[in-house]
Amino acid sequence: MGPHPAVAAIRLAVRRVLHDILNDQHTPGTPLSAPSGPGAQPPRTAERLPSPLGPPLDAPLVLVACSGGADSMALASALAFEAPRLGVRAGGITVDHGLQPGSDLRADEVALRLRELGLDPVESVAVTVGRDGGPEAAARDARYAALDAAAERHGATAVLLGHTRDDQAETVLLGLARGSGIRSLSGMAAVSGADGRYRRPFLHLDRQTARKACLVQSLPVWDDPHNADPAYTRSRLRHEGLPALEKALGKGVVEALARTAQLSRDDADALDAWASQAEAGVRDATGLLECAKLYALPPAVRRRILRRAAIEAGAPAGSLFARHIEEVDRLITGWRGQGAINLPGRVVAQRQGGRLVIRQG
Amino acid sequence: MGPHPAVAAIRLAVRRVLHDILNDQHTPGTPLSAPSGPGAQPPRTAERLPSPLGPPLDAPLVLVACSGGADSMALASALAFEAPRLGVRAGGITVDHGLQPGSDLRADEVALRLRELGLDPVESVAVTVGRDGGPEAAARDARYAALDAAAERHGATAVLLGHTRDDQAETVLLGLARGSGIRSLSGMAAVSGADGRYRRPFLHLDRQTARKACLVQSLPVWDDPHNADPAYTRSRLRHEGLPALEKALGKGVVEALARTAQLSRDDADALDAWASQAEAGVRDATGLLECAKLYALPPAVRRRILRRAAIEAGAPAGSLFARHIEEVDRLITGWRGQGAINLPGRVVAQRQGGRLVIRQG
Repeated sequence: MGPHPAVAAIRLAVRRVLHDILNDQHTPGTPLSAPSGPGAQPPRTAERLPSPLGPPLDAPLVLVACSGGADSMALASALAFEAPRLGVRAGGITVDHGLQPGSDLRADEVALRLRELGLDPVESVAVTVGRDGGPEAAARDARYAALDAAAERHGATAVLLGHTRDDQAETVLLGLARGSGIRSLSGMAAVSGADGRYRRPFLHLDRQTARKACLVQSLPVWDDPHNADPAYTRSRLRHEGLPALEKALGKGVVEALARTAQLSRDDADALDAWASQAEAGVRDATGLLECAKLYALPPAVRRRILRRAAIEAGAPAGSLFARHIEEVDRLITGWRGQGAINLPGRVVAQRQGGRLVIRQG
Repeated sequence: MGPHPAVAAIRLAVRRVLHDILNDQHTPGTPLSAPSGPGAQPPRTAERLPSPLGPPLDAPLVLVACSGGADSMALASALAFEAPRLGVRAGGITVDHGLQPGSDLRADEVALRLRELGLDPVESVAVTVGRDGGPEAAARDARYAALDAAAERHGATAVLLGHTRDDQAETVLLGLARGSGIRSLSGMAAVSGADGRYRRPFLHLDRQTARKACLVQSLPVWDDPHNADPAYTRSRLRHEGLPALEKALGKGVVEALARTAQLSRDDADALDAWASQAEAGVRDATGLLECAKLYALPPAVRRRILRRAAIEAGAPAGSLFARHIEEVDRLITGWRGQGAINLPGRVVAQRQGGRLVIRQG
């Protein structure tokens, strides 16, 4: 009898990503004829036993970032199972954000559980959360800095993150609320970070499957009280916004949002590439943007060029909204002698003799 | 003292669109030096009085589609006020969908109110609503067919529709639920239909402003019971989904969704143009798609070409989902000898000797 379907699903997801990681590495001696991509079926490893000695010490190391919650505990369990069968070393990192009393003990407990799963090395890392960008963004920044440092320290090839399709759906809605275009609808990438370090094997899996996999494997999980705290936007979205949307639109909303993320990401990538290529052609010999040539471009491409130019001139990307770019765009498409336009970061955009001048004032 | 701000807002919105319509027409004798576009301020007409004789019979005619609800009644009142000041004839059409007992009397009453506003011609048109695509789609199809016919019959230059920013936000969420990419996020266009016949002056105005404008002008409005009927997806979205989303994400959600619509529309247009241009370059001498050349394109462009090819081969656009195109795409990006792929409309896609063959089986 094979494993429970939920356990089979989490293992398959991890197996696919480990294959991708090994393929990207071109590690000598690893047979990798299996095609990758969402449609490819990597060879089943369930029946293959790992070497009793474990993978050699020079084998690639893959870490799992684990909060002790159901998603990342399921991920850790699947990594512990699959990695040795593919000749990969598996370790785990848990981050103590220090935001609640006793969080250090909790982190030690998570580290203990990761060791019990057979992961090695396992580390609990304490961080100090700042205030920049609000509590959620500050905690995230501190967490990724710690994970980056741990990956470097241990020479890890990759760090697996437990984000599920439900997390992805929430991220798309958060991006939608910004109203700043399709890049912000593209959610989290399956592969991100320096050299594609971060991988999200569960991005197509629902939270319920991860939870079920923990249950049937008798893995204790910890429910972060932050996840239910209505002070957090994501928590309100999870417990009120998304359920109401599902009630109105039907059960497929989470899947539809996750699919929107992927499609938006590909579209945004293609348009960024177009803008990047078109940019050279709309600058004059002195490097200034020519209004007539900008005018001839599709609005979607033109606005991307304008946005890039504003950021290059010193406008902070995070403070540059669609309405700013629209106003600059009207210097091209609705010219009636407007004055200079002030952008964030003391950047000024103005039209001068058929040229668009964007620079710090 | 000028008009109430809500009345000023609806009139300005209509005035802008009438200017656009006249500009597009290049009607001789109409002075139209005012720039158009969302940033442009057309000359105020509030102080200009219309000719007591009304516009000449050969002046352009603009119709308003009016259900008797607040949005379209506000629109009718603003059209009645602005049109004669711009030398435009203004008429109105109300459609009796025949879905409720007494709907014919109600339509007659709406027509009477439109005449009282000074619109001429005014017509009430009864339609028969079919069943294709569900009750909402069937009613919409019947309505637009009737409006098209009325526009032709009266020789109207344009038909104004009362959709507001709130309607737009709902439409974006409905598109999001389909998960079929950014085209379905682009909502309703400000200009659509044959020769840009349909115009939506209120797309940037909120429903509350239209309602307020009716109130302060003492215009009786009719609340369609369908709008509050939870059997309709849009109604559930309006009364439950969107309010819950606003509660979780903040009050700016409707505006963010409307802005997303505009940005997505521009992005989708640009990518469609790219795909259309790239398509010729990836066909061989016999017109077949070359897999190697398709592979070299950005995924967003490649998938659009595949979608177009499937529709050209006879697949109905409405039944062709993202997952179908993904599967065809894997014949290019994840080739491992897959068999033919069945698409809606008995269309079959298969890879043969480095070519992609998509045709009706």
